[in-house]
Amino acid sequence: MKPTTLKDIAIKLNISVTTVSKALKGYSDVSKTTRAAVFEQAEKMNYSPNSVAVNLRTRQTKTIGAIIPTITHHFFSKVIDGIIEEAEKNGYLVIILQSEESVKQEKKLIKLLMNKRVDGILMSLAADNDTSKHLKKVIDAKIPLVLFDKISKISNCSKVVINDREASYNATTLLINSGCRRIAHFRGPLNPQNSIDRYLGYRKALEDNNIEFDRSLIYTCKNVTFEEGYKFAKEIHEQNKDVDAIFAITDLVAVGAIAYLNKAGIKIPDEISVIGFSNWFMSAVISPPLTTVEQPGYKMGKKAVKLLFEEINSSNKGIDFEPKTIVLKTKIIKRKTTFS
Amino acid sequence: MKPTTLKDIAIKLNISVTTVSKALKGYSDVSKTTRAAVFEQAEKMNYSPNSVAVNLRTRQTKTIGAIIPTITHHFFSKVIDGIIEEAEKNGYLVIILQSEESVKQEKKLIKLLMNKRVDGILMSLAADNDTSKHLKKVIDAKIPLVLFDKISKISNCSKVVINDREASYNATTLLINSGCRRIAHFRGPLNPQNSIDRYLGYRKALEDNNIEFDRSLIYTCKNVTFEEGYKFAKEIHEQNKDVDAIFAITDLVAVGAIAYLNKAGIKIPDEISVIGFSNWFMSAVISPPLTTVEQPGYKMGKKAVKLLFEEINSSNKGIDFEPKTIVLKTKIIKRKTTFS
Repeated sequence: MKPTTLKDIAIKLNISVTTVSKALKGYSDVSKTTRAAVFEQAEKMNYSPNSVAVNLRTRQTKTIGAIIPTITHHFFSKVIDGIIEEAEKNGYLVIILQSEESVKQEKKLIKLLMNKRVDGILMSLAADNDTSKHLKKVIDAKIPLVLFDKISKISNCSKVVINDREASYNATTLLINSGCRRIAHFRGPLNPQNSIDRYLGYRKALEDNNIEFDRSLIYTCKNVTFEEGYKFAKEIHEQNKDVDAIFAITDLVAVGAIAYLNKAGIKIPDEISVIGFSNWFMSAVISPPLTTVEQPGYKMGKKAVKLLFEEINSSNKGIDFEPKTIVLKTKIIKRKTTFS
Repeated sequence: MKPTTLKDIAIKLNISVTTVSKALKGYSDVSKTTRAAVFEQAEKMNYSPNSVAVNLRTRQTKTIGAIIPTITHHFFSKVIDGIIEEAEKNGYLVIILQSEESVKQEKKLIKLLMNKRVDGILMSLAADNDTSKHLKKVIDAKIPLVLFDKISKISNCSKVVINDREASYNATTLLINSGCRRIAHFRGPLNPQNSIDRYLGYRKALEDNNIEFDRSLIYTCKNVTFEEGYKFAKEIHEQNKDVDAIFAITDLVAVGAIAYLNKAGIKIPDEISVIGFSNWFMSAVISPPLTTVEQPGYKMGKKAVKLLFEEINSSNKGIDFEPKTIVLKTKIIKRKTTFS
């Protein structure tokens, strides 16, 4: 069954295609009787406007693109959930793409989305992102762009983030307040801004509490995995470090550390406290349940889309849009891997 | 910066738009020198073909749609990972939509995708799906359609599934072989085919081992959640049922049951064995680690896209396509919640 066209309706009613088109758009120079007949016939023949043709006229595709590192991370799947829901509510569809943490792939995907003439792009940057040139291309082409979570500070576009430095400061402070003094930090890779900010928040908390910073307690995750958390916890144990707490860049890494500590019979939190970051679903169900920083993924997705639509609407009206940065609140979820 | 058009290039080179267009398409009636000049200029001016216009000519959007119940389930995020990767490899983009387990929403989303003139649709059906009329509309419109995981058996389209009945038979048999006789089944809702098949596999395993089926050991999850697993395990405990094993429709439900059993101090597997279905990430990291059936989500996504492309390609060539059903293998991952 081929889709019904305006021409099919016109032939059936023995009127011109222009009249059918005008009737469907509600132009006043078509009589009420004709309009009713056209609508009835369109309904009967299951007519739906060809959105490709409509888009060409209106220069809008009603489609946005979202590039994320990977969909199988609980946090990103929550963000995508928020993005899709908010977009759909506004009649927009979302193309999802994964950079797999590679900036090279990111550049390619941006090009694909630009060729597709999406109305706007949402992005959370790859971990190996050391450039913002490809983002500048999007901005220069006047395609609305919103970065979220993993952003590039220097790019002149809207952003939705949490205050990573503050959140990490609070997490470290919780450990200090419960009596921990030798706090290891399993940090993220060197480039991403949120990884840097969490590291700086950790250092600031130590400093404000007169605890000397010890570089040998910093472990750098390359891929931010369960396995790295496991491996670093093992290193700490085997090298007899006097560590009394671990602050991990994300729950996945913390869960890896817990898996090792459980296996080695090290009591949590009695011997070592652990705190994560993100509040993944699993963090509540592992044993002991993980104390962590809640990162509002779903809300972040919704806010990012709202900001993007603000910019799209301004752009449609030919108004200049001043990029905004929204900072979402985080909170610590206290469970059983820390005291207090 | 407005996107470069063919006209911009034509003006710059002082040739006609038709010549520019022909040169870019590699027509032989354009001289080599002109073609080289056009390509150089196009490169310089950052020209990219307007894919909306290209699509209108070729009647292809190079976009496919995927409708799933929800993205925040680990299994579906793995399927989507496979879908996006395979599609992108073939130059296709993927629009992701969520039915939120509602058939009403599903109908609306199908309409959206059809209006968008996607080249094909992938779907895993909502739990409350009691009709296949909306699928018939897609099939009648000759839009390539592939169902995966949660399918409708009666729909005349391609499908990618696992053998749920066999997998569930094997899971139940493992419990029986380890000595369990009073096996509760936390089943899924009544409509979805995979929920029915897992239930039937469970019954068949009991039957083949001469264990009487006891309806009071069947607990029906409405939303297939952690909370339901927790609640049903509690019911079993409080009502003093002589249950010695639980087979849950999915890991999330099994993890809920384990959370209750741990809390109530019931030893797993000594007092009650537990087996799940899906092999979520968390199943390996909870305590005790969950024995489960591995469901190949990533592979399922890739296979579904491959089947869809087969059909799209046939359709482009005007060849009739005979729907296929691919059945993927599952295996049991033995961990610590069962004996043997």
